[in-house]
This record gives sequence, C-alpha cells and structure tokens, in this order.
Amino acid sequence: MLPIAIDAMGGDNAPEAIVEGATRAVAELGVPIVLVGRPDVVDPLRADLELMPASEVIGMSADPGASVRRMKDSSLVRAAEAVRDGRASAMVSAGNTGAAMASALLRMGRIKGVARPAIATPIPVPGATPTVLLDAGANAECQPGWLVQFALMGAVFARQRYGIAEPRVGLLSIGEEPSKGNDLVKETHALLAQEGSLSGAGARFIGNVEGRDVMTDDIDVVVADGFTGNNTLKTLEGGMKALVKAVLAALGASEVADEAIAALLPLYATLDPEATGGAMLLGVDGVCIISHGSSSSTAIVNAARVAREMVESEVVERLREAIATG
Amino acid sequence: MLPIAIDAMGGDNAPEAIVEGATRAVAELGVPIVLVGRPDVVDPLRADLELMPASEVIGMSADPGASVRRMKDSSLVRAAEAVRDGRASAMVSAGNTGAAMASALLRMGRIKGVARPAIATPIPVPGATPTVLLDAGANAECQPGWLVQFALMGAVFARQRYGIAEPRVGLLSIGEEPSKGNDLVKETHALLAQEGSLSGAGARFIGNVEGRDVMTDDIDVVVADGFTGNNTLKTLEGGMKALVKAVLAALGASEVADEAIAALLPLYATLDPEATGGAMLLGVDGVCIISHGSSSSTAIVNAARVAREMVESEVVERLREAIATG
Repeated sequence: MLPIAIDAMGGDNAPEAIVEGATRAVAELGVPIVLVGRPDVVDPLRADLELMPASEVIGMSADPGASVRRMKDSSLVRAAEAVRDGRASAMVSAGNTGAAMASALLRMGRIKGVARPAIATPIPVPGATPTVLLDAGANAECQPGWLVQFALMGAVFARQRYGIAEPRVGLLSIGEEPSKGNDLVKETHALLAQEGSLSGAGARFIGNVEGRDVMTDDIDVVVADGFTGNNTLKTLEGGMKALVKAVLAALGASEVADEAIAALLPLYATLDPEATGGAMLLGVDGVCIISHGSSSSTAIVNAARVAREMVESEVVERLREAIATG
Repeated sequence: MLPIAIDAMGGDNAPEAIVEGATRAVAELGVPIVLVGRPDVVDPLRADLELMPASEVIGMSADPGASVRRMKDSSLVRAAEAVRDGRASAMVSAGNTGAAMASALLRMGRIKGVARPAIATPIPVPGATPTVLLDAGANAECQPGWLVQFALMGAVFARQRYGIAEPRVGLLSIGEEPSKGNDLVKETHALLAQEGSLSGAGARFIGNVEGRDVMTDDIDVVVADGFTGNNTLKTLEGGMKALVKAVLAALGASEVADEAIAALLPLYATLDPEATGGAMLLGVDGVCIISHGSSSSTAIVNAARVAREMVESEVVERLREAIATG
C-alpha cells in the first residue's frame, strides 16, 4: 500500500500532535505514512518517519480558494498532489477545512459526473452505528440534483465504512410529509422518491427525517445542503457540550461523584469526536480525510485508520460506479 | 384582566390534560381562563370553568390553511376570534401548530408593518436564562428583510419575558465571519450590521453565531429562517434525548444508580420543555402561545402563566413600537 500523506502543519495542535499521531499510527496500526510539511519544524519531531517537504502553511482562518491558488508549496497542496500523482494513497489533514477541500478538488479533480463534492461526517449514536451526515459544510448553497448525488455518495460511504448492506437514506427536513420543508427539500424529495433513485448505490430512500432522528438507530445516512448540515453538526456539538458540562457539574457536587462519573466514561468515549476518525470529502478523485481542527494525536491515529480502510475498500471506485449508474 | 382562551381540543393529551392544566392554572396562579371546545367532551371535565363552545376540531396533522378556512367553528378559530373581539386577552393551544398560526394570522391580523409573523421558542440553558430562537418554524422560506424584523421582535420578546435590558442578538450561520453562510444569511448580515439596525428594539447585533452557541450564556436571541430554526430546535431535542437516555442507562447500571439519578433531577427540570411555557407567535395583533403537542397539564399551567405575563407586559404594544421605529 502506498503511504498515507498526513499534513503535519494543519490543526490547532500542529505539528507536535500530528507527528505524534502519525508515529503512533505506524507503530499501532502498521500503516505506511509520509508526513508533509516544513522540514525545519518537522525534522526535530519525526524520528525515522518519511517527510515530503513543503515550505508553506495555509493558516486555519486563511481564505481557502486564494490560499490554495497562491501557496503552491503548501503542505495541503503538496499532500493532494501526492495522491494525484500516485505517490500517496490518501491525504489526511486537521487544518483549514476549506483549504483541504479546495486542494483536493483542484489537484485530484472530481469523480466524473459529480457536480459538487460533499463532506460526510459520522455522528456518534450511543449503542449503535454512527449516522453519516452529508453535506456537513462544503456547499452552503445547493441544487436538488446535487443532494441526490450526496445521497448516492453517502450511501456508498456508509456501506464501505460501516458495512451496512442496504443503507437507509433520509432527507433532512422539518416534517415527515413530502410537503414539508423549504423549496430545495421539496424538489429534492420529489427526485429521491422516484423508483430506483438510489439503486446505483444499493440504498433505500426512507423519506424526510428530522433533526431529532439523527442520533437514533432508525437511519444510516442523512442528506442536507451544506448550510443545514453544518448547522446540524454544530448544534449537536453545542448541545452535547452544554449537557455533558451540566451533568458533570450536577454529579460532581453529589456524594457519589467519583463512581457516577466513572460509570459515564464508556459513554463519553462513544461520543468523543476524536474516536470517529474524522470526516471524508466524497466526490473527489482520491481519499481525503478531514480531521477536526482540535485533533489530538489519537484523532490522527483514527484518521489514519479510516484512510487505510477507505483505500483498501476502494471507496473511490465504488463512488465512481454509483455516480455512473445514477 | 380578560380571560385567557385555552384550546381544550388541541394536543396529544386533549382534552383531559388541557382541562386539568386550565383548572390548575386558575387555582395555582389565579389566572382567569375560558376553555374553547366541544361541550359534549369538555363539559364532563370542566367543573365550574367557563366554556366557549366550538363544534369542530382541527386534527394534529390536518392541512393548516385549508382547515382554518373551512372549519369556522373550530376551537382554534374561535379562540383567535375571542382575542380579536376583546373577549379574551390571549390564546393558548397545544394543537396543530400550523393551524394555530393560521388562525391567529387570519383572525387577529398582523401588527402593522410586519411582513411575516415568526415563532419564538425559548431554548433552555443550564444555569442561565433561556436563549430565544426565532423563527422556529413559521416560515420555511424567508427574505433578508423578514429576518431583520424577526431580530427586532425576538429582542422585544427577550426583554419583556426575561427582563434582559439590552438583548444580544446573533444571526445563525456556519461561521462567525460575515462572509460565511448561505446567500440569505450573508444578505441579512449586511442589513443587521448597519448602525442602529436594532435600535428600535433597544438591542445589539453581535454578528453571526453558530449552532454550538445556542445553549450558552453568550447570547440572548438567535435569528434564523424557519427551516433552519426548526431544524435547530429538533436537532437539539433529539440530541438531548439521546444523551439523557444514554446517561441514565450508564448510571442505572452502576452501583450508585439511585443517588446519581437523584443528583440529576434539578438539571432535568431545567431542561424540561414543559417548564418553559411554550413558544409565542410574534407579529400577530394579539398574544398567541403555542405549546408542544405532547403538553401535560403542567405545560398548560406554564403556558397560561406566560400568556398572562405577556398580556400584562403589553408585549404586543412593545412589538408595534419596535416595528414602527424599525
């Protein structure tokens, strides 16, 4: 297997946590890895890990399009080029999400027939397989046909990543009836409701779903435009954080604080976004895994594991077939 | 004070829970109440509560517009007429939300200058004042100017209901920068960012906020189109439910189950939507409180309390002034 190119410069904890995660991924998973980044900062950390030099770094809040066009020797652009040129099997970055997307899109190109790539993010569901939410933020404005493609791609991803034979795909709306929602959702519903709309992905359209269904076991893939998907993700993130904080405060003040908090640790591990291995940009011609900006070394280990799984399961080929079949 | 008209027929637990809630509201709060509904089912329950007869009932999933136009003797339409005609000070319903909105809109009319009424829903924040989210579902498609009015109305509501002197108003987006979001959000941001955009409501625009900010104490009013607002509400509802269930399961299996769960009861009470007293339809020319479809008698007591507070604080007059000043 070709090495996975990991952007050593991206993320709030870069380069230390990234290099540490890459080192652990080699040791713990046996995944071949090549770091991409500035030799002056990475060399002292990398021991005998391979390094692909890149002199520039796209900042976390830099403008994605302009940065990718201008900074041709940035770690993100070099990582995407390595995948394009067959020197790496996949790229992983915890850096600027927009710039990671733009690098992958501009260097790898799209899978033939894909209108727009989308970010697929696994949402943890306590006691069950995660729900795949897409688009989680790549496209703030969408057209109905794009959402149909997101449905196809999300279903392929759910099968390749979680082994779901016939993924149940729902369209995120504000009511179950086809008449509910905004214009985009109503038009998309009409397309998805056509016989065989998702047969190219071996999936089943189960109709409109609501935000309250995302964290349940009733659904495998939730499709939304990137504005709605990103808002849903951040709303869940905020809600979980507020509730966990309040629960810990209430239990911490009780007489059984230690035992109660210990009992919650397995749940906490389930919900930890670090454990999900990051999101994947679907629709580009290569594997691109996007980790949370706050990624620790553990998040990078998990991202490397997912990248390997996606390469080995030939997810890009499966996506190509699904889009071609329609 | 004129009586509050409570729709005895609306909600999953109607009429029993509604009539019980009305009875308790009279006893516990001293609020004058008139029930609205079918004498044959309400009479056996109402003891000496007053009844305004209405022979028809709009079902929970009936088409709102058509039902309100056709069922002129329905409890919802009669309740809204009672407010319009000065026979009631406010209406409260746990029934079909769309039909409650349509009844209020068609019978009471809009406050002069209001483009579209919006539903304002308080979101519980542990240890702090709730955040007012609007529009929580009245308008799936919106224009930028409407969202500016929602901001004005939400700020007035936050002041009258929670005593917040200068409400902090945020626009729900997927990034803090004005350049982030969909077209609607970007155009609305430009309008709200103008000097004095919310001075008519004595409020302050604090810029874009994200879903993760809703359940924090950093913000008082969150403005969104009705699709995004409703999705945010239902996503939080589902996330809270999934997490609470998982927490209870984890603690329930521990050796300190009873003590731990007891320690969480005060938090549970804070988050209980029954305690918030329901949402308010802002922009119609009268007080219309919309309770959750699953309302218990306690939810109705709280809705009656909020209705009284809104009548006494003359919220409709304050909204009129804010819209007129702009």
